[in-house]
Amino acid sequence: MENDSYSAHRTYLMADSKLLPSPGGDPVAVETLLQDVFGIVVDEAIRKGTSASEKVCEWKEPEELKQLLDLELQSQGESQEQILERCRAVIRYSVKTGHPRFFNQLFSGLDPHSLAGRIITESLNTSPYTYEIAPVFVLMEEEVLKKLRALVGWSSGDGVFCPGGSISNMYAINLARYQRYPDCKQRGLRALPPLALFTSKECHYSINKGAAFLGLGTDSVRVVKADERGKMIPEDLERQISLAEAEGAVPFLVSATSGTTVLGAFDPLDAIADVCQRHGLWLHVDAAWGGSVLLSQTHRHLLDGIQRADSVAWNPHKLLAAGLQCSALLLQDTSNLLKRCHGFQASYLFQQDKFYDVALDTGDKVVQCGRRVDCLKLWLMWKAQGGQGLEQRIDQAFALARYLVEEIKKREGFELVMEVAPVLKERMVKEGSMMIGYQPHGTHGNFFRMVVANPTLTCADIDFLLNELERLGQDL
Amino acid sequence: MENDSYSAHRTYLMADSKLLPSPGGDPVAVETLLQDVFGIVVDEAIRKGTSASEKVCEWKEPEELKQLLDLELQSQGESQEQILERCRAVIRYSVKTGHPRFFNQLFSGLDPHSLAGRIITESLNTSPYTYEIAPVFVLMEEEVLKKLRALVGWSSGDGVFCPGGSISNMYAINLARYQRYPDCKQRGLRALPPLALFTSKECHYSINKGAAFLGLGTDSVRVVKADERGKMIPEDLERQISLAEAEGAVPFLVSATSGTTVLGAFDPLDAIADVCQRHGLWLHVDAAWGGSVLLSQTHRHLLDGIQRADSVAWNPHKLLAAGLQCSALLLQDTSNLLKRCHGFQASYLFQQDKFYDVALDTGDKVVQCGRRVDCLKLWLMWKAQGGQGLEQRIDQAFALARYLVEEIKKREGFELVMEVAPVLKERMVKEGSMMIGYQPHGTHGNFFRMVVANPTLTCADIDFLLNELERLGQDL
Repeated sequence: MENDSYSAHRTYLMADSKLLPSPGGDPVAVETLLQDVFGIVVDEAIRKGTSASEKVCEWKEPEELKQLLDLELQSQGESQEQILERCRAVIRYSVKTGHPRFFNQLFSGLDPHSLAGRIITESLNTSPYTYEIAPVFVLMEEEVLKKLRALVGWSSGDGVFCPGGSISNMYAINLARYQRYPDCKQRGLRALPPLALFTSKECHYSINKGAAFLGLGTDSVRVVKADERGKMIPEDLERQISLAEAEGAVPFLVSATSGTTVLGAFDPLDAIADVCQRHGLWLHVDAAWGGSVLLSQTHRHLLDGIQRADSVAWNPHKLLAAGLQCSALLLQDTSNLLKRCHGFQASYLFQQDKFYDVALDTGDKVVQCGRRVDCLKLWLMWKAQGGQGLEQRIDQAFALARYLVEEIKKREGFELVMEVAPVLKERMVKEGSMMIGYQPHGTHGNFFRMVVANPTLTCADIDFLLNELERLGQDL
Repeated sequence: MENDSYSAHRTYLMADSKLLPSPGGDPVAVETLLQDVFGIVVDEAIRKGTSASEKVCEWKEPEELKQLLDLELQSQGESQEQILERCRAVIRYSVKTGHPRFFNQLFSGLDPHSLAGRIITESLNTSPYTYEIAPVFVLMEEEVLKKLRALVGWSSGDGVFCPGGSISNMYAINLARYQRYPDCKQRGLRALPPLALFTSKECHYSINKGAAFLGLGTDSVRVVKADERGKMIPEDLERQISLAEAEGAVPFLVSATSGTTVLGAFDPLDAIADVCQRHGLWLHVDAAWGGSVLLSQTHRHLLDGIQRADSVAWNPHKLLAAGLQCSALLLQDTSNLLKRCHGFQASYLFQQDKFYDVALDTGDKVVQCGRRVDCLKLWLMWKAQGGQGLEQRIDQAFALARYLVEEIKKREGFELVMEVAPVLKERMVKEGSMMIGYQPHGTHGNFFRMVVANPTLTCADIDFLLNELERLGQDL
C-alpha cells in the first residue's frame, strides 16, 4: 500500500496488522519453476505447435473443456506439479496460431526473435511512460517509429504504439477533430457543429465503433462506395462530402484502407489524397493489415500516396508476425499534436523538475496511463532479419497468394464449395486439421477467406489447403 | 496476403512475383535461440534483477544509452550471437521493476507464476474474441471475472479485461451514458443534453483524459472536494450535483476512488452510493489500485459499499503483481449492456451460423477488435497461491506500511527531507540503489510516495529505504 512521509497517519494504515514472514519465494524454486514451464512451452507450444504433423486445434465442446481445465479459483494454493500440469493443459487445448495450417485470422506464425523479445518484455515488466523507468524502451520506441515513418515516406513526425488497430484508428479520429476544434478537449462535442467522417463500405468495423465511443455517433460515419474489388471510389467520396455539407455537417476526416479485412483491397490513396487536399480534410490510412507491404520494393506501389496522409495505423502483429499486440499510429505532425490533444500533465508522474530532459517522458501522448512495451519484439525481429529478410517475407506472401489463385483455377468444383463453408469449417475444426475463416460478402454467400501471413508457409501448405477442402467436402 | 476463393483476380495478386524458398527457420535453431534467450532472462532479469545486492537501475544519459544500444534498424540481419548480445544489453540498461528497492510505481515485484502465465500467453499468441480461436481463454476469462465479481459482492454480472485502468474507466463512462441515452451510440453527443460526471480532486487523471477522448470534454468533470486524508466528501458531492443541475447539466455518473494515486485514500463508498441512489446516478468505483484489498478479510472494510456500484475497475497488475497489463472492468449489469453498447456484429468475425454457441464469442463486448489474453497470468498465480496466499500478500503490505510509519516517527529530520526530494531522486537513480517516486500535493512541496506492492518485501527493505534516504541526504 501507499504511504507518504509528510503525514503518515492515514486511516488505512491504522488497521491492527501484525508483520508476517515474507512470502517471497526461494530464488532456486523460482528458477526451477520457470525452467520447467519454459521446457513445456518449447515442447508443446513451439515444437508441436508449429509442426504440420500435429493438430492445429484440439476441439472440445465448452462444457467438456470447462471440466478438463478445472478453472475454478480456490482458497488453497496448488503444488508445483499441479501447476505444471495446468500449463500443459492450457497449451494442449489452445489453438496453435503458429501452426502452418492456421489461416483463420490476419495474424499467424511464430517468429522466434519476436517471441524472444516478448519474453524479455514480460520479464522486465515496465511501462514506457517515463524515461526514468523505461530508458531503453523510450529510446527504442522512438527509433522503431522513426523507421516505420521513413517507410511511409516521412523524414519527421510523431507516433505511438497503441493496444491494437482499433484504438490506433480512434486516436486518428480524435486527433483530427482536435486539430480542427481544439476547444473540443475542454468543452466537448456539444460546442462543435455536427461532424462527418468518410470511409468505404469495406472499412474495418473499428471506424464505426470508434465514432460511437468518441461520442460522434455512428451517424457521423458516411459510407463511400467501393468498386467490385473492394477499393474506395474517389468520385463517390466527392459526392458524399457534398451530400454531408448539404445536410449541414462539417467533413473533417477520410479514413482510407490499405488492405481491407475481407477482400484485402488497397484504396487508391493518391486520388483520395487529392480529394482531401481539395476539401482540407485529415487523411487517415488504416494500413493495419497492408502497412507491412511498404517493406517490399516490388509491392509497395499498392500504397502509393500514403506519404500524403496525416496519420497511418500499421499493425506489424499481422503481416510481420510480431505478436499481439503491435500497432503503430504514425503521424506526419511535428507540432506536438499528440501531447496537446491527450496530455493532462499528471504531477505525480510527469514532474517538471526531474534531473533529465522531460521531453523523453512520452506517457502524456496517450490516453492510457501505464501501457505495455510493444516495440522490443519488432525491434529484435528486425535486427535479426534485417529489412531485407522482412521484405522477403512480404514477397513470399504475395507469391503464395498468386500460387493459390493459379491452383484454384486448375481445380474443378471450387465455385460450388462456398455454399457449404460453415459445414467444412465445423469438420476441419473438429478434426483439427486446419483453420480458415469464412464470411459472406455483398451478394455472395459464405466463402473462405485465405490469409497468407505465416512467414514459414510453403507451396506444400497451399496444396494441403486445397486438398483438404476437397477431402472435407467430397460427400457434399 | 489475403485471397478469397470466389473471385481471385485481385489486382494486388497480379504483380509478377516469383516463388521464393521458404524463409521458415530450422526448428532446432529456433529452439536453441529461445533456450539461449531464456537463459539470459533467468540470469539477468530474474536472478540479478530481483537481488538486493544488484543495482535497481544502471543509469545512463539518453545520448550515451543510444550509443550503447545501437538502436538503428538496418537492411542486413544480424547473427544469432549479436542478437543474444542485444538481449543482454536491453536487460542490463532496463530498470528492474521486480527489484526489492523499486518503489517508484504502483506496480512492483516479479511473481514467478504470473511470469510463467505470461510466457505461455506469448507463445500461444491469440486473441480472446472468439471461442473458435481462444477456447481456453474465453472460458478462463469468464471464470476469473466471476471470481473478481464475487469478491466485489456480486453473484452475477458481466465484465471484460481492458488494456489498463484508464481504458477501464473510459468504458464505465461510456456505458453509463449509453444506459441513460442509448441514442448516443448512433446519434452522438449532440443529440443529448450537456452531461456532468463527478469525481474527487484526488481522482486519477484518466477520468479527465477519458472525458476528453469520449467527446464529453473536461468541463463535464465536476470536481468534488476531498478531506485532508484524500477522501471524497459526500456532502460536497451533493452540493456539486445541485450546482451542475442549476447550470442546466444532467448528472449521470459518479466515479469514486478506492486507493487514490498519491495518498492511497479510500473514498467512503456507502455514503457516496446513498447520494447516487438518491439522484439515480451510475456509481463507478476506480479501484485500480485498491481493489486487491478485497482479498483481505482484515482490510476489505476499506471498500465497504462497493457492492452497490454499477461498475468497478480493478488492476491486479498493481497490488497483486500480475504483470502489465491486467485490468478488469466489472459490471453488475445482466442485461448485456456491454455488447449492446459496443457491439457492431462484424460479419467476418462473429458469424451467426457457427457450429457452436456464439454467445461464447465475447469480442463484440469491447471497442477493440483483436486484444491480448490478460487472464492466464492472474489465473495461474491464483491457482498457485490460492486466495489465502494472495490475502497474505495484502496483509503483509499493510503491515509493512504500518512498520514504515512507526519507523519514520522514530527518526529525526524526515519532515525536512521533503524539500530536497528531486535531489535525492537524482542521486538514488544515478547510483541505482533504489527508486521511489515524488510529487507535490496541495500546499505540500515535493514528498516521496512510498508504494508497498512487491510481494517479497520485508522489514529489512523498509529499513534500507529509510537508511538510504538519510545517507543520500546527509550533506543537505
